[in-house]
Amino acid sequence: MDAAATPAQAATQWRQRIDAALERILPPADEAPQRLHAAMRHAALLGGKRMRPLLVYATGTAFGASLEALDAPALAVELVHAYSLVHDDLPAMDDDALRRGQPTVHVAFDEATAILAGDALQSLAFDTLAHARCDARATVDMLRELAVAAGARGMCGGQALDIDATGGARVLRIDELEHLHALKTGALLRASVRLGAIAAGVDADTRAQLDRYADALGLAFQVRDDLLDVEGDSATLGKTAGKDAAQDKATFPALIGVESSRARLAELAQTMEDALAPLGPRAAALSTLGELAIRRSH
Amino acid sequence: MDAAATPAQAATQWRQRIDAALERILPPADEAPQRLHAAMRHAALLGGKRMRPLLVYATGTAFGASLEALDAPALAVELVHAYSLVHDDLPAMDDDALRRGQPTVHVAFDEATAILAGDALQSLAFDTLAHARCDARATVDMLRELAVAAGARGMCGGQALDIDATGGARVLRIDELEHLHALKTGALLRASVRLGAIAAGVDADTRAQLDRYADALGLAFQVRDDLLDVEGDSATLGKTAGKDAAQDKATFPALIGVESSRARLAELAQTMEDALAPLGPRAAALSTLGELAIRRSH
Repeated sequence: MDAAATPAQAATQWRQRIDAALERILPPADEAPQRLHAAMRHAALLGGKRMRPLLVYATGTAFGASLEALDAPALAVELVHAYSLVHDDLPAMDDDALRRGQPTVHVAFDEATAILAGDALQSLAFDTLAHARCDARATVDMLRELAVAAGARGMCGGQALDIDATGGARVLRIDELEHLHALKTGALLRASVRLGAIAAGVDADTRAQLDRYADALGLAFQVRDDLLDVEGDSATLGKTAGKDAAQDKATFPALIGVESSRARLAELAQTMEDALAPLGPRAAALSTLGELAIRRSH
Repeated sequence: MDAAATPAQAATQWRQRIDAALERILPPADEAPQRLHAAMRHAALLGGKRMRPLLVYATGTAFGASLEALDAPALAVELVHAYSLVHDDLPAMDDDALRRGQPTVHVAFDEATAILAGDALQSLAFDTLAHARCDARATVDMLRELAVAAGARGMCGGQALDIDATGGARVLRIDELEHLHALKTGALLRASVRLGAIAAGVDADTRAQLDRYADALGLAFQVRDDLLDVEGDSATLGKTAGKDAAQDKATFPALIGVESSRARLAELAQTMEDALAPLGPRAAALSTLGELAIRRSH
């Protein structure tokens, strides 16, 4: 972040930076196999809030990392996120036709291409991160974090728990729902903060403090997502509203009601504020991203 | 390899070693999410020739790497291979019900679980490799090799080319078919040899020599695979025979005939022998694996 830039200005700059970097790193659509490459570009380039890369940049720059050192981890977390959306939208999974106001990859292309594009985006995430402009030790540490966050003990595991819970015989307890989201959405958001911290060489105490912030942010992100599905409309969301209830998904509003979900959000906002307070003014951008997660309308 | 062990004995020992390591590293089937973990274990533990791990061990030990340093790369290439089979077998891809004489993952479990299990196996491959018992620089180099070999410019790209070619309007030329397989099967086999070489700190000249061997092996592997689909029976193969022709797949026998395919195999055997000759007796196990690729009956 420039010394003069406000957190919101910095976020805009980082968003432009990650969009340009994605454009550069994705294989060109006119190079064979064209259909696969076009599908990968469709998945990663058509909008999105870029919350995960923003967390990498906000954390890393707060502790002195250069933007150049942060590009690879920022790209990697976004590529993992993009791949997960492609696979989540498949007919055998959430069966969604609309994402970010655009046809999902299996609709715009076909199912086989969507499976492969997701697979290739995951490989590209690790390829990109393995080429980070950091020393080898930090690079290995970032790769470990990302691989664990993406796998069976992170995002994939959370998605599996979600499938098990959807339309299931048994209603989840609130702690089970929070655990599910700590894996499904939380693991990658936490990893985004951690990758920024590793690239910046942050000490263990500060990392623990950042984890508290990231865990609250991850949960807030999901509670807000569930509320939007109840309150939002498809045009604003860019995806099908009301789908959770229709699919009998376990959500915070379904489990504890809309009012309690809003109260939980306010609590999580406080947790984030408390976690960032000891870090002082350099945490301003992280604070803004926390507010964004809580206030967002899509 | 023990000084006293023949190449065949070494291969048996390495196969036992990788099976035990896979058993140890895969998440337990009695830990939540159980269905995902059981599917991952089904995909990775039910047999297989373990050709890729054997290549890692054969290459690495030939140049002085310890088995402990080779375990992580050996696991990683097998996990990538296992994930690719799970996704290739999906209804939207090759739609295969039988693999290694067992129901495929989407048949034994369900499609959503198969997609997720493949995804999680890919993450686990990078997770495992990032924990290799090598120095950080070598580990990063191995991660780069594997990620490129697995992605759009390697295995996923080859699979996409294969889909484009299957039942297509245009018959492939032989050079196009060889390029397809250099990506689809060849990239990961070549990476297996390279990972072993990196772990052992092999010099650039020797690496180039090993690449020549690996490229011939990769192609031989696929030519033999195509011939087996024509000549073999489902019981021996452990998968559905005659599927390539039924699906109008581009194969070597379809393109150049059975006799010419056999002649091509003999040529490739010679290329492997020539590539290994300068390396002397330490290449004995690699030579044996080359013969295995060419003579195998399943």
